[in-house]
Amino acid sequence: MAGHFIVFEGGEGCGKTTQLRQIQQWLQQHPGLPPSADGGSRAIVATREPGGTHLGAGLRQLLLAANSQEPMVDRAELLLYMADRAQHVEGCLQPWLAKGAIILCDRYTDSTVAYQGYGRGFSLDLIQQLNQIATAGLESHLTLWLDVEVEVGLARIQQRGAADRMEQATLNFHQRVRQGFQELAAAHPQRIVRIDASASITAVTQQIQGILTPYLHQWYGTGSASYP
Amino acid sequence: MAGHFIVFEGGEGCGKTTQLRQIQQWLQQHPGLPPSADGGSRAIVATREPGGTHLGAGLRQLLLAANSQEPMVDRAELLLYMADRAQHVEGCLQPWLAKGAIILCDRYTDSTVAYQGYGRGFSLDLIQQLNQIATAGLESHLTLWLDVEVEVGLARIQQRGAADRMEQATLNFHQRVRQGFQELAAAHPQRIVRIDASASITAVTQQIQGILTPYLHQWYGTGSASYP
Repeated sequence: MAGHFIVFEGGEGCGKTTQLRQIQQWLQQHPGLPPSADGGSRAIVATREPGGTHLGAGLRQLLLAANSQEPMVDRAELLLYMADRAQHVEGCLQPWLAKGAIILCDRYTDSTVAYQGYGRGFSLDLIQQLNQIATAGLESHLTLWLDVEVEVGLARIQQRGAADRMEQATLNFHQRVRQGFQELAAAHPQRIVRIDASASITAVTQQIQGILTPYLHQWYGTGSASYP
Repeated sequence: MAGHFIVFEGGEGCGKTTQLRQIQQWLQQHPGLPPSADGGSRAIVATREPGGTHLGAGLRQLLLAANSQEPMVDRAELLLYMADRAQHVEGCLQPWLAKGAIILCDRYTDSTVAYQGYGRGFSLDLIQQLNQIATAGLESHLTLWLDVEVEVGLARIQQRGAADRMEQATLNFHQRVRQGFQELAAAHPQRIVRIDASASITAVTQQIQGILTPYLHQWYGTGSASYP
């Protein structure tokens, strides 16, 4: 596997989608990265779950559409996220990694643990089992957890306008989700790095750049010495 | 659980959808069935997997649509069927059973074992595990396996016109599916009854009526003595 896989995680309104775009631009503007094995320039791929594939886009619509006629049952929701993940891993992430890309992914396995495990109360063993099936064992090289207090994140969301089905869940639900990310970060300190996402967009971007720089050096050696 | 749950299973072109409708009419025309616990008439519900719910209808479209741009990976397909099942069990089957309905369902857990297990080569343990998660343990009271030779079933399908993604699979795939149903029927003789589905529509309907009659007597006692 020639590429690297970086995941952006966090609760509602943590700013991960904005930061992912900032970091994608930053990486694209730094030609210090060595070319990929085939000699071409190294792709910086932005993707997300759910919805990173053609199938996933259809699933994302089903998942986020509030439907008062027929509320989605929790086990169906969990299995849809897993189907999306299976398609994403095999149809998108693995092929890009084989080509040497740096992948920036908005949500991955930890979101399922935090939202469906801590949030909805599913057994963590069950989720781990399903994550294993869906990912065929593919883990991120680095997961950036953008942490912000629940009230702050939800206030940001409200400013954006209409909330989707997940954003409408109770305050208590979102607090359990945050606790989930906290416990995941404590359990996997090698893989998950906490980012203080309460600061301004620029300050958070700089924080992430500071964390990423030594990883890029480690992964791509002196060729990436031009990173700030 | 006041109602009863009857599943129609089989390979492509076995006639289960046609037979399910015939049996639904037959049950509806026989008022010998005792009323349900609330005193109302007993509902005879026809449903199917995938696609028995609002969510399922959306998933069914995703599952059956051939997409040459992005082939669906096998693990995603398996997980989508499971999400459809979870929604169907909790949002449709369990509520109807609680009301005392007789449910006639076109495909259920055995199809996943036959198609994804024997057909696609997934581990049977994995499928059993996922079926358990999706169904929360709900099994059929009776499963009618409409068995027909693969070539005969596929010839019937071809007469119907355009084939969907599943029907387009290779002959060898469909032979493995049939073998799956054979082994399931051998392993679960109390639950699964084989029907010779090579005969005419009328003859197959009569066969099924003959098999169902003693079950109806057993389930509903003398009140259903008017069954032929």
